[in-house]
Amino acid sequence: MLDETVLPWNIRYLEVKNSQEAVSILKDMKTRAFGQVLLYYYYVLFEIQKLRNGDILDRIREITEAFSQARPTFAFWSFYGQIEGWWNEESDLLRRKEYLRGKILSYLQEIKHLRLKRARFAAIELPQGDILTHCNVSGEMVYIAEIARKELNKKLSFWITETRPYLQGARLTAWELDKSGTRVVVLPDALSTRIIREKRVKAAIVGSDRCTRNGDIVNKIGTYQIALACYYFKVPFYVLVQPPTADITEDIQIEYRDPKQILTFQGESITQPGVEALYPSFDVTPADMVTKLIYFDGIYTPEEFRMAFSKSQTQK
Amino acid sequence: MLDETVLPWNIRYLEVKNSQEAVSILKDMKTRAFGQVLLYYYYVLFEIQKLRNGDILDRIREITEAFSQARPTFAFWSFYGQIEGWWNEESDLLRRKEYLRGKILSYLQEIKHLRLKRARFAAIELPQGDILTHCNVSGEMVYIAEIARKELNKKLSFWITETRPYLQGARLTAWELDKSGTRVVVLPDALSTRIIREKRVKAAIVGSDRCTRNGDIVNKIGTYQIALACYYFKVPFYVLVQPPTADITEDIQIEYRDPKQILTFQGESITQPGVEALYPSFDVTPADMVTKLIYFDGIYTPEEFRMAFSKSQTQK
Repeated sequence: MLDETVLPWNIRYLEVKNSQEAVSILKDMKTRAFGQVLLYYYYVLFEIQKLRNGDILDRIREITEAFSQARPTFAFWSFYGQIEGWWNEESDLLRRKEYLRGKILSYLQEIKHLRLKRARFAAIELPQGDILTHCNVSGEMVYIAEIARKELNKKLSFWITETRPYLQGARLTAWELDKSGTRVVVLPDALSTRIIREKRVKAAIVGSDRCTRNGDIVNKIGTYQIALACYYFKVPFYVLVQPPTADITEDIQIEYRDPKQILTFQGESITQPGVEALYPSFDVTPADMVTKLIYFDGIYTPEEFRMAFSKSQTQK
Repeated sequence: MLDETVLPWNIRYLEVKNSQEAVSILKDMKTRAFGQVLLYYYYVLFEIQKLRNGDILDRIREITEAFSQARPTFAFWSFYGQIEGWWNEESDLLRRKEYLRGKILSYLQEIKHLRLKRARFAAIELPQGDILTHCNVSGEMVYIAEIARKELNKKLSFWITETRPYLQGARLTAWELDKSGTRVVVLPDALSTRIIREKRVKAAIVGSDRCTRNGDIVNKIGTYQIALACYYFKVPFYVLVQPPTADITEDIQIEYRDPKQILTFQGESITQPGVEALYPSFDVTPADMVTKLIYFDGIYTPEEFRMAFSKSQTQK
């Protein structure tokens, strides 16, 4: 896995040899966002190779449990559900393992393709000009900017909140966009509302860690205050979404991370010992503050999204 | 001057021997907020001692110009106006210098007294419980917490945004309140809106660098997004104010500080070279988002404040 904690200063890859190492990479956020998906599925593939048929589902359940404990907000159990489904599709016991391996590998190919499709929808939907973003969507803003520039002749510039405490905006999004030739401006998190109020950006776009069937969004802390400002000042607010994995946001556990991460920077204390801090990693943005949800197969208003994914419908 | 850039790790005082040193302390924000008032008047006193009567006003104008260039948002010219007024009050040329010195010294006494009065009004007005604050008001939150506890038997706890990039919240407000025995919780700036939405705080209170006659507020960047969230979710939002020094906020120049301060954290780069950043030091909160303005002589609604300070009235 690419170690995202040392970007942009170092490009360092970490080898994962057992589940403890996988979990500790997650816990320390050495990988995050889409990297978590890759880590989960590749780690499952790695385990499958070593295991007998009869042990596979139990072991994947164990792995899923450990991953979920490390990052409780992320939908690892929905990945497990998908794997269990594939497992049960193949009744020939001798071919089951190979079938599952094939399914996972083709899913990983498919998901890269889906992310590119989603990026294309976003590139089409976004207005030309200055766009606000928050945190990091594992390279997807680069896809969006490049598709816009190369295929649509549309120039996008990004204003990026630094995203304390992990600094995904300043360290990752600004880095990857700048490297790809897109103009970026980094902002303190406390400036986003003013930038929106002054209409210095034409739209905002963020990713999401989870969403519900009615289009509510769980994403990095700070997303909600951007959504509120966009809603109040009528600036379009777009969210890149995956399939909904919960009915309501109350079913999604919000992860609280170590307060030390707020009280330190790169290991150095920024306040005196004994001071408390609060660091919920995510916040919830209600669907009615989202202009459009950008999904793998198209662009939805919250209303359309709810219609498409309501429980009575078959899940896409 | 107390060097606020090395708090809370070191208590270090800086000696000022000439105007270059005074200006560089301002520019580097080694002192800020109320410290700027003290630096200005004490530096003027220091110059007065050395100068002949005929040179005094010219020299103070020069100093004011240099201070204003270093921190353009701060109302140094209104201090100059006050000094010029005192100077003209005494027509006896031989006594002028001593008269001005006396006026400045008694004003500095008076202003400490006024800040304590204002803190008492705030302590009376704030509800018991958890209060959100942003940035730092040079010890005034300590006065407020102590008056509330000791005189009013009211317990206040403070939730404090860290206030990137200078970290006034984490380094100064959390430090001074914790030291005085008040419970504090530090938050990333991106969390304030969620905290307000969840009603985890009963009110928010901030200081202000400037205000206008109609009650609009200029304060540290990030104040506005707290005000908007309080307004939207009906959480009382209080501002400590000084006499208005402008008719409208357009007359107040908003200082843009070195973008490097956003691109570094405690001196260390947080993104790759070449990435741009934007760092306006202040934002504007319109009076209609302020619940009450807490002034030296009492507590005002925006409407009452406008009545009291409108141009037709004598300025207090």
